[in-house]
Amino acid sequence: MDAGKHTSRTRGNGKEQPARDRIVRSAAALVRERGVHGVGLRQIVAHADGPRGSLQRYFPGGKTQLITEALNLAGAEVLDATESGLVEAATLADAIDAIFAPWRQVLLKSNFTMGCPLAATVIDASGDDPLRQEARALLDQWRDSVHATLVKFGVHESTAKDDASVLLAALEGALILSRASQSTQPLDTVQRFFTRSLTAAEPLSSSRR
Amino acid sequence: MDAGKHTSRTRGNGKEQPARDRIVRSAAALVRERGVHGVGLRQIVAHADGPRGSLQRYFPGGKTQLITEALNLAGAEVLDATESGLVEAATLADAIDAIFAPWRQVLLKSNFTMGCPLAATVIDASGDDPLRQEARALLDQWRDSVHATLVKFGVHESTAKDDASVLLAALEGALILSRASQSTQPLDTVQRFFTRSLTAAEPLSSSRR
Repeated sequence: MDAGKHTSRTRGNGKEQPARDRIVRSAAALVRERGVHGVGLRQIVAHADGPRGSLQRYFPGGKTQLITEALNLAGAEVLDATESGLVEAATLADAIDAIFAPWRQVLLKSNFTMGCPLAATVIDASGDDPLRQEARALLDQWRDSVHATLVKFGVHESTAKDDASVLLAALEGALILSRASQSTQPLDTVQRFFTRSLTAAEPLSSSRR
Repeated sequence: MDAGKHTSRTRGNGKEQPARDRIVRSAAALVRERGVHGVGLRQIVAHADGPRGSLQRYFPGGKTQLITEALNLAGAEVLDATESGLVEAATLADAIDAIFAPWRQVLLKSNFTMGCPLAATVIDASGDDPLRQEARALLDQWRDSVHATLVKFGVHESTAKDDASVLLAALEGALILSRASQSTQPLDTVQRFFTRSLTAAEPLSSSRR
């Protein structure tokens, strides 16, 4: 249990936090690529170029704790990217683009090897209930954020919650179809569909105009 | 390489085919539950109660061949279940129900531990291109079948292909959201959304009426 002690001591306290961060980032990247079962703890540490044996100290809760932190990091990054896009959004079409654009980047930058780590976790994690619950909480948070965005940009309250759920489902599915076909076409089609159908449903005669 | 010889000999030829079938079925079930990386070959044989060491003989192409056959079996089963539902469908709403109903059964019967094996394969299989291509071909086939159904039940040709892609994406995503929340609510919401939006778009004044 004292494995890695020397490594960390020689590196000193200043280096400890970055190594821990790198491990969480590597875990997020590898789960996006291969799912939860597809990555081993040793593989994550090697990918992070982290000190061997440091996992026990950094993540006493084991793989579940590490993946939980990785999911939270990945979730925060996507919400941040979406928020940046929303700052400049003037129309509902722009807002929908802000929701989809970060995912188009994930697909293209990874050459279609990476998708949503929450989907990967849910699909793999039938044996790990705490991880499933974590993924569920983050998916709920994301749906609420999409819901708030749709309402802000004029989608009627009476349908916005269902619209947000369906948009999120279609986005998750489109990431799978895009990875399968190694093309952003499924994602583009889904974005176009919601832009058209939600814009058409926008109450033009409402108080927003 | 001769492991399992005695088992198969004592069982006789008549039993060989069922054992092979059982292994393919077990592979499909386990991939639905845990993804491709989450299942080992030995685990599949144990689940199938198959003769040890029979894999080499039955599946000389290894795990890729076995999972490919499992995906084809699972795909054929879902298309068959959908076809059965379509036989009695009178309206577009019925047809959409025929597409969604087999998946509601998969979720409920498995207590939300099982989803779509194609999604699980795509998410896991960034390191196995033949498997990704197989999953892609089956997803394309499924989309074409949804497309044909939508057109048959009155969705306009000009939008039916995109509608089928979006419906399939939303269905795949809804399976993930339903497993995450251990509830069919996301699937129900997606089905209701498409029933409403595609029925509303149905050209009531067309030659079908």
